[in-house]
Amino acid sequence: MTDYEELDLLRGIKTPADLKKLNEKELNSLADEIRRYMVSTVSRTGGHLASNLGVVEMSIALHRVFDFSTDRLIFDVGHQSYVHKLLTGRAEKFSSLRQRGGIAGFPKTTESEYDAFNTGHSSTSISAAIGIMRSDALKGVKRSVVAVIGDGALTGGMAYEALDDVGQQKLPLIVVLNDNEMSISGNVGGMSRHLAKMRSARGYRSFKRGFASVLNHIPLIGKWLSSRLERLKNRIKYFVLPNVLFEELGFTYLGPINGHDLRAMTQVLEFAKQMDKPVVIHAITKKGKGYEPAEKDPERFHGIGSFDEATGESAPSLGNSFIVADELVKIAGEAPDVVAITAAMASGTGLNSFKEAFPDRFFDVGIAEQHAVTMAAGMALSGSVPVFCVYSSFLQRAYDQVLHDVCLQDLKVIFGLDRAGLVGADGETHHGIYDISYLMSLPNMSILSPSSKDELRASLRWAIFENDSPCAIRYNRGVLGDRPMSEGSILSWECIKPFRSVCVIATGRTVGTAVDVCRDLNVGLYNARSIRPMDEDVLNDAARAHYIITVEDGIVNDGFGTQVAAYMSMHGSGAKVIPVGVPNRVIEHGSIKEQDDECGLSAEMLSETIKACMGGIYA
Amino acid sequence: MTDYEELDLLRGIKTPADLKKLNEKELNSLADEIRRYMVSTVSRTGGHLASNLGVVEMSIALHRVFDFSTDRLIFDVGHQSYVHKLLTGRAEKFSSLRQRGGIAGFPKTTESEYDAFNTGHSSTSISAAIGIMRSDALKGVKRSVVAVIGDGALTGGMAYEALDDVGQQKLPLIVVLNDNEMSISGNVGGMSRHLAKMRSARGYRSFKRGFASVLNHIPLIGKWLSSRLERLKNRIKYFVLPNVLFEELGFTYLGPINGHDLRAMTQVLEFAKQMDKPVVIHAITKKGKGYEPAEKDPERFHGIGSFDEATGESAPSLGNSFIVADELVKIAGEAPDVVAITAAMASGTGLNSFKEAFPDRFFDVGIAEQHAVTMAAGMALSGSVPVFCVYSSFLQRAYDQVLHDVCLQDLKVIFGLDRAGLVGADGETHHGIYDISYLMSLPNMSILSPSSKDELRASLRWAIFENDSPCAIRYNRGVLGDRPMSEGSILSWECIKPFRSVCVIATGRTVGTAVDVCRDLNVGLYNARSIRPMDEDVLNDAARAHYIITVEDGIVNDGFGTQVAAYMSMHGSGAKVIPVGVPNRVIEHGSIKEQDDECGLSAEMLSETIKACMGGIYA
Repeated sequence: MTDYEELDLLRGIKTPADLKKLNEKELNSLADEIRRYMVSTVSRTGGHLASNLGVVEMSIALHRVFDFSTDRLIFDVGHQSYVHKLLTGRAEKFSSLRQRGGIAGFPKTTESEYDAFNTGHSSTSISAAIGIMRSDALKGVKRSVVAVIGDGALTGGMAYEALDDVGQQKLPLIVVLNDNEMSISGNVGGMSRHLAKMRSARGYRSFKRGFASVLNHIPLIGKWLSSRLERLKNRIKYFVLPNVLFEELGFTYLGPINGHDLRAMTQVLEFAKQMDKPVVIHAITKKGKGYEPAEKDPERFHGIGSFDEATGESAPSLGNSFIVADELVKIAGEAPDVVAITAAMASGTGLNSFKEAFPDRFFDVGIAEQHAVTMAAGMALSGSVPVFCVYSSFLQRAYDQVLHDVCLQDLKVIFGLDRAGLVGADGETHHGIYDISYLMSLPNMSILSPSSKDELRASLRWAIFENDSPCAIRYNRGVLGDRPMSEGSILSWECIKPFRSVCVIATGRTVGTAVDVCRDLNVGLYNARSIRPMDEDVLNDAARAHYIITVEDGIVNDGFGTQVAAYMSMHGSGAKVIPVGVPNRVIEHGSIKEQDDECGLSAEMLSETIKACMGGIYA
Repeated sequence: MTDYEELDLLRGIKTPADLKKLNEKELNSLADEIRRYMVSTVSRTGGHLASNLGVVEMSIALHRVFDFSTDRLIFDVGHQSYVHKLLTGRAEKFSSLRQRGGIAGFPKTTESEYDAFNTGHSSTSISAAIGIMRSDALKGVKRSVVAVIGDGALTGGMAYEALDDVGQQKLPLIVVLNDNEMSISGNVGGMSRHLAKMRSARGYRSFKRGFASVLNHIPLIGKWLSSRLERLKNRIKYFVLPNVLFEELGFTYLGPINGHDLRAMTQVLEFAKQMDKPVVIHAITKKGKGYEPAEKDPERFHGIGSFDEATGESAPSLGNSFIVADELVKIAGEAPDVVAITAAMASGTGLNSFKEAFPDRFFDVGIAEQHAVTMAAGMALSGSVPVFCVYSSFLQRAYDQVLHDVCLQDLKVIFGLDRAGLVGADGETHHGIYDISYLMSLPNMSILSPSSKDELRASLRWAIFENDSPCAIRYNRGVLGDRPMSEGSILSWECIKPFRSVCVIATGRTVGTAVDVCRDLNVGLYNARSIRPMDEDVLNDAARAHYIITVEDGIVNDGFGTQVAAYMSMHGSGAKVIPVGVPNRVIEHGSIKEQDDECGLSAEMLSETIKACMGGIYA
């Protein structure tokens, strides 16, 4: 356990300007302190450890060279911003990481002037940077803009759209390519192969030595006369491996650089700052650097819950992802057409087990959800049965492909919507609360919302064996309960407690809460395990109620409750519908329990809502 | 006017196999016939002329070399599939192009076994092809898969995601890069620059001669012994310009080839067919080739309405796009922070006038909607006021960016949602009917739906001058009416006819229809010019009605009517809500009038619906 009070150097860093007081030896000691503090904190709070351990020196170097209170620094995805936060006045509060009211796990413009742009999803940084630069140019603002992007995020197509634009327009953006040779779980794709080739190229070692000796002549502060700069550039070019790919896109390529060499990183950034054109700095880093368990198993330490600081051991995750993956493996044994697809989330979605069992029928396309969905459409058209397991929040990236390629063609693609609903500590960018709204209007799409492990398995089987059209199955982060599945199709709604003047219709994980809450209340209770289609028999029954309370782990203003309410008005029911769900505002990081409280989804608050309705009738 | 009956050669092509009966001279005459027939047909029906004129020889060559009844051919975007259709049994029906029940303007798997995958939106072809190939591999199916993609579509990020995957996995896909040096209105980006460099490279002319002489030795039909093939490949490599970009991504690059040289195209395809690895064939074509007006003004002839065949003259378009663009130019004169963004649609969205007036404040990012939106977010964060004019259907591609980058950060980005609602002849992939559904749940987003030119202008002014959050303004293809705007904020709903037991609430272009229909009916009529927020005063008033009929040019099962219906149930109204809008099934190409009839949105059908409700009360 490392306490903030023990960190002599870090305590002295109130703003990044304080870095200038430290010599290089002290900066390297600071890096050690930061690593210890991050390991200790994340062992309690959970978080993205491995990637942050990989960017310690890079982040220090960035803050030595630039002043990001005015210069702009954008972290792609943003899960690697812990060091940056520690250096920008948030070290003391850092123990509150990812907790309600505490330091967010991602950059937040509301948290610090040093956070330039909120991130969370992949591959947005270069676009955001371009926007800032173009606006600056119109307003005559002069400052540097830096985007830090991992090699994984570079597999996302929008990063390429942006690189293409920068290169063409010769915008003087500095892209720091943080190449740790894996995104979350090993990288894929031609770009990855290309980077690998560059890493291993003959020149790397000699380049490192040569480049360092040249850069030693660059003062850390101060401007270069442009003539000297030109001469220097020519000398450096001699050492730089020709990176045709970036050069063809219009960038000057600098690298590869050892991203853990504080001096080299500082110097190359200083150099890039002086250039007035697009630059890519290719920094090689090691995920998990400096903490042995994370170096050995960076995938587990990418996003991790609490763990034992001394040993690195953590409790195995037993969430819905694994129930889905296990059932998929079973099904794939029965049905040879079934294939599984992930977008760089083999571990998070539990599909590693499928990969082991059926390596030929498993496809990891990298962080490329759009490609994943349209590829799935192509597979379905040719007779395979693709199951794409993806976090609900990340499927947003492929909304058009779900609509245009899958639904309009009515192709049998199954979406395992993992992390549907509130997700807790990752906060607002990661909530899977919009899926009901964005899928509801798509032609041919079914949406299942199981409330128990059995229903989750049955949903998969229905989608694969009984349905011939697109189907999304949403399941929450965490694990559903063991309540046995009642008889009947997964499309029918279960009547848990018979009709009363007040009826509760819950869906997904909220059914568990509703069962507890309603046990001793004189209300009807239904389990809506299919959101689309809805069970009209049950709806017509419930239509006689005075109050219908809908409960869902999703956005309330265009979700399940809205559909139930609309059904009632369209069918002439006089029932008053009270929808309970996530309100239409930003729900920040915290525990799921805290978020449930904020949204009225906790047992206590749901109970109050129901009792208020009952009071309304009997008053 | 060229009639099918006059086309001696084309009439003989019942299936692509019939191409084999023609010698090269006849094939070139066939190309002429096809051009004349397409010009004549599109001059009456409207359509995508210029791009189809550019792929005549390419399409003939493809059908000579492959058998696409089993081999698979995927046209990216798909607007360049006319020639393909003419060669695959659809020549006689071709005069019904884009008309209800007639030949679609895009590939349709339901129309022909030769259409492998439905397209419409950009940059999907390579992903779809990969899906087909992976499924084939699992099932032991052997066939060739070819994707034809324009240089414009290559600016879309998902194409890159897919190229990355092909190259890494060494999937033997044949990509025909149809490089006409512009997507729709002039290309942008580093890739475009890269291609331009290659086109102009010293080797092109000599390569053409050399390559042709090598290829002359390839028989058009029959397999090569692999040893001979290897030798040939080595010889060809000598002539091929090293294309580092594609080569780095894992492709063998062949080109550039003159895409109008039938023999060269045939030979290079034949060669690519024998290779068992990823190949890019870089074909240079001319948009509008063979029809002088289209060669001179390919942008106007990209997607065009009917025109004079002899002169190429067409009536200038006077749609809502131009009202928006004109007003934006005015506003930009008053407000220096306002900038305009397009994704390769400067002409279609009318923004060409903005580009002329304020070239420094106009940004065309290419076919890259994702990048456009996040760039806009970056600009907004830095104090500019970006207005992104985009077809509603194409904004689907950037759903996640609208949510994650704009709405969660509550940034003032304005979306001009052009072609919102039914679009007519372009059919189901282009309808802008899902936007209300997908935008409704996004935090901080307003949705305006003006019903007249004045309200359209007022909507823009409100979004730019009075609002500080994201706002989408939806306007239909075509032009809104001249009804003057009533007093009050654009957020308030206009009461056109006062409350009655039957109330109609219409929005957007349907208000015009509703005004006509309701003129002599004893009903209330409201103009919902803001969809979000809704005007609760009006809703509470209407809540006393027996029937509320909502009318919208959008998908009915999760749109405006659903929201009105849900409001009624949530507020204890007993009103029965009858939503009129686009039903949840695929609405194929035809005129907007025909589509309105199909959806119950025409005056006649709306009148019937309203009268049925009135009968319900008074019966």
